[in-house]
Amino acid sequence: MAHPSLYVDALQYNNWSEEVFKQINAGGLSAIHVTICYHEDFQEMVQNVIDWNRRFEDYDDLIFLGKTADDVRTAKAQGRTAIFFGYQNCSPIEDNIGLVEICHQLGARFMQLTYNNQSLLGTGCYEANDPGITRMGKQVIKEMNRVGLVVDMSHSAERSTMEAIEISERPIAITHANPVFWHAALRNKSNEVLKALGESGGMLGFSMYPHHLKGKSDCTLESFCTMIADTADVMGIENIGIGSDLCQNQPDSVVEWMRNGTWTRDRDFGEGTASAAGFPAQPDWFKDNRDFSNLESGLRSVGMSEKDVAAVMGENWLRFFESSFGPVNA
Amino acid sequence: MAHPSLYVDALQYNNWSEEVFKQINAGGLSAIHVTICYHEDFQEMVQNVIDWNRRFEDYDDLIFLGKTADDVRTAKAQGRTAIFFGYQNCSPIEDNIGLVEICHQLGARFMQLTYNNQSLLGTGCYEANDPGITRMGKQVIKEMNRVGLVVDMSHSAERSTMEAIEISERPIAITHANPVFWHAALRNKSNEVLKALGESGGMLGFSMYPHHLKGKSDCTLESFCTMIADTADVMGIENIGIGSDLCQNQPDSVVEWMRNGTWTRDRDFGEGTASAAGFPAQPDWFKDNRDFSNLESGLRSVGMSEKDVAAVMGENWLRFFESSFGPVNA
Repeated sequence: MAHPSLYVDALQYNNWSEEVFKQINAGGLSAIHVTICYHEDFQEMVQNVIDWNRRFEDYDDLIFLGKTADDVRTAKAQGRTAIFFGYQNCSPIEDNIGLVEICHQLGARFMQLTYNNQSLLGTGCYEANDPGITRMGKQVIKEMNRVGLVVDMSHSAERSTMEAIEISERPIAITHANPVFWHAALRNKSNEVLKALGESGGMLGFSMYPHHLKGKSDCTLESFCTMIADTADVMGIENIGIGSDLCQNQPDSVVEWMRNGTWTRDRDFGEGTASAAGFPAQPDWFKDNRDFSNLESGLRSVGMSEKDVAAVMGENWLRFFESSFGPVNA
Repeated sequence: MAHPSLYVDALQYNNWSEEVFKQINAGGLSAIHVTICYHEDFQEMVQNVIDWNRRFEDYDDLIFLGKTADDVRTAKAQGRTAIFFGYQNCSPIEDNIGLVEICHQLGARFMQLTYNNQSLLGTGCYEANDPGITRMGKQVIKEMNRVGLVVDMSHSAERSTMEAIEISERPIAITHANPVFWHAALRNKSNEVLKALGESGGMLGFSMYPHHLKGKSDCTLESFCTMIADTADVMGIENIGIGSDLCQNQPDSVVEWMRNGTWTRDRDFGEGTASAAGFPAQPDWFKDNRDFSNLESGLRSVGMSEKDVAAVMGENWLRFFESSFGPVNA
């Protein structure tokens, strides 16, 4: 193996291709949580699974469907990458709690309770008001806990996030976001959320999507890695990892669709603006999966111990996967 | 015509049959707003339209699909009944604002923004917290206003209802509910809502579903009609009508489905209780559509003028239909 360390990324949504899978392999990623839903309903999500099944057939020397923590170890040993499915919205379960288990059976391991807007389960970070987890949301969290589908609050509003941490009987995740103390943004998280997440055994994945970065596309590796070390002080070194939010090779029409779906006739610019509506440029130290080793070097450069670097780069997510993806008593 | 007065009922959800249609005809109803959706998504709602299309074929001497106020006049002249479609939930538009116009094209004339729970658009009356109309809700109200689909807040929570009245550029309806001042219930409405509704030109339909009645199944006709007269004092005689919420011949499994749909694994009893989970018995003065004339007599008995009785029994709804079901400039 070219990379002795275990690398796990808890969020990517690339325009998938042989080129990207080869970069993932070259970068030494053993596991990636990939988004297979932003606005899709159940049947549309199933089509995305079908598309992935074809990729698993075509590139089985590089990737395979990950279901358990053991699959990460297998991937590491074989020099391949385990692909774990997740949803950035609860739209695939529609209004049917029975679909929670069906989605798990089809491979889903993470589900956000909300994207940016109000959902049937909770409130997204772009709503003006956040009443917390709904009646259906409480039912669905219980069912997600039962089957081993991780609650992800990356795009949720503050109160809903605090309530999800409280209501969920298993640790939850914020797979891709950064702390507000470093860069104030609707998508980033307060110290209160970070502390509650850490105390409950949950995980935060650090995002390298420029709108979440201090200085955006000009953010430095040193600033990013210093922020990671500072966040460890807030919520614990064992509760943090990477969740890059890499959206490689996607046309701007994709971020337009992410923001607007089919819910509005006005045009919503989300984290962008009318004059800068597209995907922002990645910082030069994280262009694609081959740059994961830059993060490892960067963490060392800010004085993090080898053990802590390994924890952040992959071991923490592996431990979280181990305890999260099956029934409680399995 | 057996009935000189115009009768319009703004909400029924019966177990439809030849027997019921004959009672509707015998009762002299010229228009009924029927519910064709509680939890259905778009395609499931379309199947309900298909079922109604068969009924319109089979019983065209008694009923036909109503689309405009003129259809009510036609029905009255022909001794038939115009059936207007409505949804008690926004589930048929899923997360697609383009489906608002499609639903109108398929005959829908009323759509509740919420049933009892939080929806993508607003908050239902059984939620603990009500943050008001959502981002998507504001977009959808604008689109409903454009095409002539009436916003119905019968099952919505207080703040969402007040905001819908404020945001909607056309008068809205609460098709089936009663005032809290008469009978306190989560489904009944505060004087604040009633006043805002009246001042905006909106309509309230009085419900005879026993859980909404003072004394429930034992409610007297006199008490009900006195309440109607008192409500006229609060919100204006021109803004009230009947919305009986008649659910005739339905098995108890239907009310169980209304309450629980597929959103919960626990059992929700809604307005009922574990020991009285089924449909409650109708008051003896309103068993089916043949009892509409009892309401007319009852209103006269509490001293209401002939003109006001006619307004409540049907003329108010006819005027509201006239101004609500088409584009604004039609």
